[in-house]
Amino acid sequence: MPPLTTPKSGDALFASVERVNAELFTLTYGAIVRQLLTDLEEVEEVNKQLDQMGYNIGARLVDEFLAKSNVSRCVNFKETADTIAKLGFKMFLGVTATVTNWDAEGTTCSFVLEDNPLVDFVELPDTCQGLQYCNVLSGVIRGALEMVSMKTEVTWVRDMLRGDDAYEMRVKLTKQVPEEYPYKDDD
Amino acid sequence: MPPLTTPKSGDALFASVERVNAELFTLTYGAIVRQLLTDLEEVEEVNKQLDQMGYNIGARLVDEFLAKSNVSRCVNFKETADTIAKLGFKMFLGVTATVTNWDAEGTTCSFVLEDNPLVDFVELPDTCQGLQYCNVLSGVIRGALEMVSMKTEVTWVRDMLRGDDAYEMRVKLTKQVPEEYPYKDDD
Repeated sequence: MPPLTTPKSGDALFASVERVNAELFTLTYGAIVRQLLTDLEEVEEVNKQLDQMGYNIGARLVDEFLAKSNVSRCVNFKETADTIAKLGFKMFLGVTATVTNWDAEGTTCSFVLEDNPLVDFVELPDTCQGLQYCNVLSGVIRGALEMVSMKTEVTWVRDMLRGDDAYEMRVKLTKQVPEEYPYKDDD
Repeated sequence: MPPLTTPKSGDALFASVERVNAELFTLTYGAIVRQLLTDLEEVEEVNKQLDQMGYNIGARLVDEFLAKSNVSRCVNFKETADTIAKLGFKMFLGVTATVTNWDAEGTTCSFVLEDNPLVDFVELPDTCQGLQYCNVLSGVIRGALEMVSMKTEVTWVRDMLRGDDAYEMRVKLTKQVPEEYPYKDDD
């Protein structure tokens, strides 16, 4: 049996990782969005690309998260969602999310962000009203969860760039693939 | 006369700013480069776009730098270069650069980076050998310096992604525009 470890707190976790200036990150992300708008023209296409970028990034970040957080297997989707909200967001963005609005089955919930480093200094021009500026974030969640065998659909339901009072993404678990091990528990 | 303040140390400065996870930044930047390679096809065009993105970012970051660093006017290009190397790089990337290889006129020098958060996990495929992966950084330097009235040319002369032993960019001051004030010193 492996030694038991205690999961780190979000603050300890964030303090333990290499970091860069948030404004540099925000401006760099803004440069991507601007570039995609120029290259792809259709806002819908930009939304898709941002989601796909996020998916690829999330699929990579989950490894760093599991390696550094000391989090062991989450028993269910609820525990997974709480872990992402309190530790995952903190470790990568330095903020935490609130998990809320669970459905009766415990398979759909919302992540609510009041502070979102991605959107500092951002204003959407009138021509970009259909733009899902933060789609990279929902893509990250989708990509990271798929790597731990949870297929999800993630959609934005509130967006401060469109005048809402917070950022809220809805995460729906559509399929959970049981993990198979090449070894037995008592190996 | 404004009150005299002492410039912060690089470490204090970096500790004082909002930060995000470096791996998230690295992967996000990698996603931009990949996207540009797909969209633009020509490596030369990608190099230009990365430089232009950097220029735009640098022109914005210089404000945050001046606001937070307590650095007052640098007396010459040499002092400016030292300030960028010790404080600018630290504030935004969490690393410092070495300033070296000054020419006799004191108008051209090199920034040498041994640690470069932009390139963690990056390997250039054979098809991208002409890619200047870190062109965003040289663009940032050029953009930031132009905002403080120094026109420069910045080129990469060593690149670890191409097998060199460090990252070295050559910064050449081509024109220094005297700043004009709308007010007198004793206003």
